[in-house]
Amino acid sequence: MNQDYIQPDPWSLIEEGFDVERIKSSESLFSLGNGAMGQRANFEETYSGETFQGSYIAGVYYPDKTRVGWWKNGYPEYFAKVLNAPNWIGIHIFLDDVPLDLNTCKKITGFRRELHMKEGWYRRTFKAITANDIEVEVNILRFLSLEIDEVGAIKYQLTLKNKPARVKVSPYVDAGITNEDSNWDDAFWNITNVSHKDNRAFIEAHTMKTHFGTCTFMHAEANFAGKNVVPKKVGTTEKKVTLEFEESLQEGETVSLIKYGGYTVSTNHDATKLVGAANSVLDKAAILGFDGLLETQKNAWADIWAMSDITIAGDVKAQQGIRFNIFQLNQTYLGKDSRLNIGPKGFTGEKYGGSTYWDTEAYCLPFYMATKNQKVAWSLLEYRYNHLEKAIENAEKLGFSNGAALYPMVTMNGEECHNEWEITFEEIHRNGAIAFAIYNYYRFTGDYTYIPEMGLEVLIGIARFWHQRANFSQNKNKYVILGVTGPNEYENNVNNNWYTNYLAKWCIEFTTEQIQKVKDGYPEDYDRVMAHTKLTDNEVDSWLKVAKNMYFPRSKEHGVFLQQDGFLDKEMVQVKDLDRSQRPINQKWSWDRILRSPYIKQADVLQGFYLFEDHFTIEELERHFDFYEPFTVHESSLSPCVHSIQAAKLGRMDQAYTFYLRTSRLDLDDYNKEVEEGLHITSMAGTWMSIVEGFGGMRVLDDKLHFTPQIPKEWKSYSFKVNFRNRIIKVTVKEGASQFFLEGTEEMSIRVNGERVVLVPQKEVTV
Amino acid sequence: MNQDYIQPDPWSLIEEGFDVERIKSSESLFSLGNGAMGQRANFEETYSGETFQGSYIAGVYYPDKTRVGWWKNGYPEYFAKVLNAPNWIGIHIFLDDVPLDLNTCKKITGFRRELHMKEGWYRRTFKAITANDIEVEVNILRFLSLEIDEVGAIKYQLTLKNKPARVKVSPYVDAGITNEDSNWDDAFWNITNVSHKDNRAFIEAHTMKTHFGTCTFMHAEANFAGKNVVPKKVGTTEKKVTLEFEESLQEGETVSLIKYGGYTVSTNHDATKLVGAANSVLDKAAILGFDGLLETQKNAWADIWAMSDITIAGDVKAQQGIRFNIFQLNQTYLGKDSRLNIGPKGFTGEKYGGSTYWDTEAYCLPFYMATKNQKVAWSLLEYRYNHLEKAIENAEKLGFSNGAALYPMVTMNGEECHNEWEITFEEIHRNGAIAFAIYNYYRFTGDYTYIPEMGLEVLIGIARFWHQRANFSQNKNKYVILGVTGPNEYENNVNNNWYTNYLAKWCIEFTTEQIQKVKDGYPEDYDRVMAHTKLTDNEVDSWLKVAKNMYFPRSKEHGVFLQQDGFLDKEMVQVKDLDRSQRPINQKWSWDRILRSPYIKQADVLQGFYLFEDHFTIEELERHFDFYEPFTVHESSLSPCVHSIQAAKLGRMDQAYTFYLRTSRLDLDDYNKEVEEGLHITSMAGTWMSIVEGFGGMRVLDDKLHFTPQIPKEWKSYSFKVNFRNRIIKVTVKEGASQFFLEGTEEMSIRVNGERVVLVPQKEVTV
Repeated sequence: MNQDYIQPDPWSLIEEGFDVERIKSSESLFSLGNGAMGQRANFEETYSGETFQGSYIAGVYYPDKTRVGWWKNGYPEYFAKVLNAPNWIGIHIFLDDVPLDLNTCKKITGFRRELHMKEGWYRRTFKAITANDIEVEVNILRFLSLEIDEVGAIKYQLTLKNKPARVKVSPYVDAGITNEDSNWDDAFWNITNVSHKDNRAFIEAHTMKTHFGTCTFMHAEANFAGKNVVPKKVGTTEKKVTLEFEESLQEGETVSLIKYGGYTVSTNHDATKLVGAANSVLDKAAILGFDGLLETQKNAWADIWAMSDITIAGDVKAQQGIRFNIFQLNQTYLGKDSRLNIGPKGFTGEKYGGSTYWDTEAYCLPFYMATKNQKVAWSLLEYRYNHLEKAIENAEKLGFSNGAALYPMVTMNGEECHNEWEITFEEIHRNGAIAFAIYNYYRFTGDYTYIPEMGLEVLIGIARFWHQRANFSQNKNKYVILGVTGPNEYENNVNNNWYTNYLAKWCIEFTTEQIQKVKDGYPEDYDRVMAHTKLTDNEVDSWLKVAKNMYFPRSKEHGVFLQQDGFLDKEMVQVKDLDRSQRPINQKWSWDRILRSPYIKQADVLQGFYLFEDHFTIEELERHFDFYEPFTVHESSLSPCVHSIQAAKLGRMDQAYTFYLRTSRLDLDDYNKEVEEGLHITSMAGTWMSIVEGFGGMRVLDDKLHFTPQIPKEWKSYSFKVNFRNRIIKVTVKEGASQFFLEGTEEMSIRVNGERVVLVPQKEVTV
Repeated sequence: MNQDYIQPDPWSLIEEGFDVERIKSSESLFSLGNGAMGQRANFEETYSGETFQGSYIAGVYYPDKTRVGWWKNGYPEYFAKVLNAPNWIGIHIFLDDVPLDLNTCKKITGFRRELHMKEGWYRRTFKAITANDIEVEVNILRFLSLEIDEVGAIKYQLTLKNKPARVKVSPYVDAGITNEDSNWDDAFWNITNVSHKDNRAFIEAHTMKTHFGTCTFMHAEANFAGKNVVPKKVGTTEKKVTLEFEESLQEGETVSLIKYGGYTVSTNHDATKLVGAANSVLDKAAILGFDGLLETQKNAWADIWAMSDITIAGDVKAQQGIRFNIFQLNQTYLGKDSRLNIGPKGFTGEKYGGSTYWDTEAYCLPFYMATKNQKVAWSLLEYRYNHLEKAIENAEKLGFSNGAALYPMVTMNGEECHNEWEITFEEIHRNGAIAFAIYNYYRFTGDYTYIPEMGLEVLIGIARFWHQRANFSQNKNKYVILGVTGPNEYENNVNNNWYTNYLAKWCIEFTTEQIQKVKDGYPEDYDRVMAHTKLTDNEVDSWLKVAKNMYFPRSKEHGVFLQQDGFLDKEMVQVKDLDRSQRPINQKWSWDRILRSPYIKQADVLQGFYLFEDHFTIEELERHFDFYEPFTVHESSLSPCVHSIQAAKLGRMDQAYTFYLRTSRLDLDDYNKEVEEGLHITSMAGTWMSIVEGFGGMRVLDDKLHFTPQIPKEWKSYSFKVNFRNRIIKVTVKEGASQFFLEGTEEMSIRVNGERVVLVPQKEVTV
């Protein structure tokens, strides 16, 4: 653990005390988002110390020119990057002409941040003695509205404590910003117009190359010692507009500034009418007023929590951790717009360029399916459908043909955003995760319509890819898949990664089944898809030949599938026997050494056992878990959750709990020493899975919800809710007893520990 | 073939006609070098068209900051790069104030370049009508002196053909130059002083970071219509000094400028006295005069050719090709300075940063051993001895210990200069080539002294590396070497590359033998080395355990060693059955596709059969050649020569000749469409090997020279000379007969086609 300054609290993140070393970490941890935009917890007022400025608009990206050491054919020329957007939160404060700047204050006391997850707001308070000896008390409340998702609101209150002073409060919008993650220091924004009217200001700018039009706007209301005032002056430069409010205040008097700000974007509005759209948004916000808007915020978050909260009794840090994860997932993605997806850093940083990884399908989808309306999951699936053409182009760049689709490793707009050959070209199992998500959606929601309407074409593209990517080995008399990187990225360019081969086979077989089902049940869709894809029976037969004759490496001696060909040639020293000083190996070892070691970054064979649990016996799971986990270093944030779920299934609750701890407070406790760059959003969904699927043992089998509840001995109880096919069930687990509560009006039956349990609405059943 | 504008000629490269499209290619092909410096064939006068300016000083490099897409532990932070040095060849010409610029002339006729390889000079002539309608005839002769290797000389003659004009001739030195291969646009040079005196000018500058001090200097003598003149004016800027000679000339009159220029460098002189050193050099040159200096040039090249020439009768293009190769090798490296080595682009371009590859040991050493004094080969070996500490550091960075040495893939100063993990960290067979060169030197020269004096320590470092790099596979009950890239770089991160494993085993065994030999024969050296390396018998025993139990992949079915584990799982379609449109695959295919294909870039298993020919029977060679060559695409310039030698050995002279053709005119005919970036210097030594070892069948066995001469049916005869242990033998091969001529005074016996032949000095023996 690298930090422990966040106070334990069930509903809030609280930081106390000002520490320049923690600024960037706290900027990440206290980030705000509302699905449409988000921002790091940068200070409103000037801060001359080290900071990482970040404001992000969902779906607005820049295709930065790729940087590589040595070019390889097939690398993307450009890749979409999360883009730092113009700043609307800034408020310069001057006290007798000296800027308020926490980096230069003589004394700071009572510095406190609170991120109130329950109600969705962020408060910062402090007292300070400025460089010119003026003592102030400051209280700032900020939130990004869920109700009107183009706007955020700030109430900035400052009180003079020791003497009178002339106080200037200058809220501004500023497009003079930079991206830390820029490869070539290109200009990302082209500013086209800067304007203001009364207490409002606007900057119109569009992104270079992608031409996303945006208007960054603000509306400010200042009150000095109870008196509303209008701006004294407006400062305008090419990139910035500042409204200057200025009055003299006496000791004990307060200035209060309310600022609404945000973005209107050409993806949602006519690009020529963004200022008008901004004015409408501001009118709405101003009518509600700060308190009214805050009220809607509390209500909106109450609705979210009503469905997605997990309570843990008896362990406040675990409680805080899980809520932080759920909070951040909801800040990042709310499923309202199928053009958006779940960025690995959400709205908390720039790193990793591009917003979508296979994390979405493999880790996030279950969370959104169970805690939201099924439309949200549909949106995630539709996102990939919309990118199918680009996935086909991507495959073509790598030499595939006939509509084979390879979804990108990382993307914003469907184009590949990554350029390490061993990942971009070889970590192809991602394609399988996208097919699996289609199956998983149907399994969980019972809604088959996605497949005939959209999914079948995606599946056909994916099946075609696997068919072409495998080749027949005369030597093995089987089909093999050579040169891949599995989920365990500590192996590159291996042959016959079991997980990849298994997924490839499954994709082909699943696709073939769906073709038949659509043909039988949705003949119009079938005809449309066949006309579009030009698929023939012969082609499907050739796919099936590959699937039926797929090679799977295995060890007779160990009774396990091998992660890949040759895995047993390694020096098989288990992690427990590895010197602690060598960990984490990704920081201590050169890449070749990692590659030839047996160490596993995250579940690989076991990822397959997770996805296809019902294909294997519990004994097989146990044998594979006992073989592979001891070599696993869990150096990916996505690793512990799968192992936690499997350990729970094997009845090893202590181990399951240990894994759970590693995932739930990963960022809060900054295990990887990098939280200042942003949060690990997608792995947060894994934490949710660890509880619901791991401890709660939730599964869907034959259209029924199953639970096998267990509880870590460290906890008194925990509870979660799931929305299963529009039926909401609350599950509460205590030592020795589980309670189930069904909302709604109709009965339903579930299985608990294998036994059928009938739930009567509004009545708690204890098992 | 991509160009054919170079006229066939046995001793010269001749280009006729001016073509802007050929400028950069010709700049490469007509490059000059003298081992200490070199330059592309850039024009002296202003040229506003596309050009690639390059002047290089041997051993002067810049550690450029590494550029990678995604950082991996172990990558070098900086790497040494060939550095474009200040320009001393420039001469601005103004005719009535309009610059002479071939890019803006109204008409150009009689444009001709000649690189006279026999005498080591380069002449350019042309007639042109300038933008202001002045007709001129220009004749420029340039060479870099072998006699005084810090100086080059230019005679620039211009005659007015149609009218009088005011002619300004302005020779200059200019440090305002850039590097095309710069990663971050850093400034590479810090200019410290610009000065001039009379008809001389000097720019002192040192490289950033490496602080190589240099003085770029010139001396100019102008003669207008038979009258010597002094500079009218001196133009000085921060980066440039220009001497301005100016007179009016009548129609038919000629201005002739003689310019000497070059560099004095702090590696050879007191850094504070570089101008003084430059003056001394210029004094020497001026005393000799242009013609005198040119005379020494002719003599020096005559000496080189006397020893290294290969004649081919009946095939002028082959003759020109082999001489071009020999000429360029001698321009690049003359073995006078063990701090230098053979850059892959010599003095003809920047690309590939760093000067030394395993090419030196594997391909170039035989050429230099056979055509030079053995001190030259010693110098090459000493270079690696001097880098031993850095090789140990390099290995430490990758996690090796106890003095294990990993020589860099590419280097200038002993530090690694490459940063693709699959090469830098994994193409470790390079270490074996360095050990093999030590053996090869002893085998050829009979001089054992290098081993006790220097080589043994190098060998111990290398043996230690192999010992640590191998690991015991319980599964195979053998030692394996995982995660490597063999000479065939179209495979990355493979397990048990046969060549690497074989070399590793051989290195350990060879080292062990040398330890014993040094112990027995050179006890003082032995004690010194043992004290330094702290080697114990136990350690050697543990090496031998690895060597004796090394695993070698093989196929029973095909009766061959396998290039690596799993090679036979590929889709084994031979190159002949591959669609021509797919070639070269390194331009047409994405990297993953190349990797999973069976296609071989350059000899890999066969490289082992080349180095260790006497370990295998001819039948084994044939079986392996017939298995692997059909999968070989020869997309490395180092590929055809080894195959040519082996095809010749197998009596397949047609095939051997085809391979020979691919290598000997690679650059002249620009097979790879990249000659404009520079020449492929190191592979030129492979061309020499193709003739001497391939067609001539030269081998050294048991301290005796062996020949099995054959001749391609396209040739009438060919001849070459070798210096074998200070005995010079000339071999002339004709259809059905070979002649041997021994210089010197003592008899010696050789073997021709297995039969002993006694050579009497000064008497030709025909076999």
